[in-house]
Amino acid sequence: MASRNRFFEVTRRGMSAVLAAFTAFAILLPGSGLSQTAVTSPFFCSNAAATEKAIVTFVERVTKQGSPDFVPPTERIATFDNDGTLWAEPPIYFQLAFALERVKVLAPLHPEWKDKEPFASLLKGDLKGALAGGEAAIFEIVTVTHSGMTTEEFDKIVRDWITTAKHPTTGKLYTEMVYQPMLELLAYLRGNGFKTFIVSGGGIDFMRVFADRVYGIPPEQIVRSSGNLAFELRDGRAILMKLPTFNFNDDKAGKPIGIQTHIGRRPIAAFGNSDGDLQMLEWARGGGGVRFALIVHHTDAEREWAYDRSSSIGRLDKALNAAQAEGWTVVDMKNDWKTIFPFGSK
Amino acid sequence: MASRNRFFEVTRRGMSAVLAAFTAFAILLPGSGLSQTAVTSPFFCSNAAATEKAIVTFVERVTKQGSPDFVPPTERIATFDNDGTLWAEPPIYFQLAFALERVKVLAPLHPEWKDKEPFASLLKGDLKGALAGGEAAIFEIVTVTHSGMTTEEFDKIVRDWITTAKHPTTGKLYTEMVYQPMLELLAYLRGNGFKTFIVSGGGIDFMRVFADRVYGIPPEQIVRSSGNLAFELRDGRAILMKLPTFNFNDDKAGKPIGIQTHIGRRPIAAFGNSDGDLQMLEWARGGGGVRFALIVHHTDAEREWAYDRSSSIGRLDKALNAAQAEGWTVVDMKNDWKTIFPFGSK
Repeated sequence: MASRNRFFEVTRRGMSAVLAAFTAFAILLPGSGLSQTAVTSPFFCSNAAATEKAIVTFVERVTKQGSPDFVPPTERIATFDNDGTLWAEPPIYFQLAFALERVKVLAPLHPEWKDKEPFASLLKGDLKGALAGGEAAIFEIVTVTHSGMTTEEFDKIVRDWITTAKHPTTGKLYTEMVYQPMLELLAYLRGNGFKTFIVSGGGIDFMRVFADRVYGIPPEQIVRSSGNLAFELRDGRAILMKLPTFNFNDDKAGKPIGIQTHIGRRPIAAFGNSDGDLQMLEWARGGGGVRFALIVHHTDAEREWAYDRSSSIGRLDKALNAAQAEGWTVVDMKNDWKTIFPFGSK
Repeated sequence: MASRNRFFEVTRRGMSAVLAAFTAFAILLPGSGLSQTAVTSPFFCSNAAATEKAIVTFVERVTKQGSPDFVPPTERIATFDNDGTLWAEPPIYFQLAFALERVKVLAPLHPEWKDKEPFASLLKGDLKGALAGGEAAIFEIVTVTHSGMTTEEFDKIVRDWITTAKHPTTGKLYTEMVYQPMLELLAYLRGNGFKTFIVSGGGIDFMRVFADRVYGIPPEQIVRSSGNLAFELRDGRAILMKLPTFNFNDDKAGKPIGIQTHIGRRPIAAFGNSDGDLQMLEWARGGGGVRFALIVHHTDAEREWAYDRSSSIGRLDKALNAAQAEGWTVVDMKNDWKTIFPFGSK
């Protein structure tokens, strides 16, 4: 365990760049002795030998030169859902929290909202009333807060919000509500030559503002739902306007479609937490050779939240059945994760 | 000129991997002396000092540590059109040549085509008659040849074709009809920390089959037009079916939209050859700081082809005006390129 602990201490001190540089260098020189020193340390702050072993065994099989299961680095594509997989999602999806706050900011420009649902309830502080309209209400709130500005203006709005807004339960920044074991898993996979992607039902322009800093995943490796855009020359300068219409819904069957359109390769590993991720996990598993599928099961009401088959957010029902039937790896957060968030737990 | 020649000889011998490894290593160690050894060799087999100097000056400005124009490697996004910019396009777009040949292969399964245009003319060998229907005819030919199979089946069809089909004029493989100076430009930019993307009006699944091998651009760095897909479980295995409907047209104003949706960063350099690339070039130029836009002007009827303002393929009219008005770099193929194709010229 000594070498494991040392690895975790190093990454926790923010020195993962050293590791990344070392590993990238090893990958660049496939013919040299250095290529034999692929990072094999496990990534979880984990009590769960079985879960940990499943991941490490998979990575060792696909990275070992000469192994029949060897996968070249270019094909080592790993896709991650975001909400509930990389960061928390209760009490409401964080991007929806952003949209609700934006409604309040924009209200003075929209006097008609006083008499129009879902805005009227929302502005009176009645969130339950505002969301009583279900998906249509949410769609309307997201639309008015995510369109009508240029992509660069939206980027600044998100940047200002994400650096200051606090989670209602923990009082932490939303970007602190990420799962420490998953950060280490991302680093571990990248250290073994994987290219990591986020494939999420949320809006593409929202997450790109901070995913590079928080997860080490650059904008071009984010596959998400997107609205339509319009190209314009404004005073001779090219801009893109965000339109109030929907282009692509990157959820459920939309996930493998988004992956194919964006990445063009079938992932060899996929990570999710809800029924919205089922098709992505099936897509990853459906390729030839060794494949890996993992589900994060929210089982820790004390340190995080506990929810699955009957939850309105992050429902995990069919995908849990599939995981059991197909033998996918299921993380039991309560028993498998020693640490939940970088700051500890809820 | 000695060092320039050596650089080109090395790349021509297929040893660009050595260069890439060296440069990547230099980038990984920004604090070391190695970071000062960024590759500054020019890339063109060029007689054109001015064109060459424009590119080299741009790259030196954005890569020099401490320079006010310095751009970090993550932001060094360069986007390239394909048809007419990276490979040739006369007498017809190569992907259309593929589609036409597929019609002949598929004809026995479609007896009704004997009496139905554009297929009837095409099967009689009357290409002009087949294409008399204009864009609608082309759209129909592309649709029937690019849908109705899984993404993996289509991949195999393209792979079989592209490794054997020959260009009607030169008798060379289509993948040999790439521009040697542009291959060197791609290597030069990547050697200086740029991430290179293809942004093309052609279909996304077609080019991904060979772009990695031919251009060193992996599938996930290709932004192109795409058809709709449908997720299915076939005998329990996840597949994606290619549907006969169009999803996204990555041409003209579609190019900056495709770039934003896929890459999420505004390119700092863009390369095209026709009016279909105008908006992409404007988008690249419209960002802050130093930006670079280049147009390949087909001026060499002898060694390649000569066409611009009145051509039905690769029309270069408005974009040429813009280049002149805005001071973009225009490559005069006849006078600027010593070599056209890796095998020489037409």
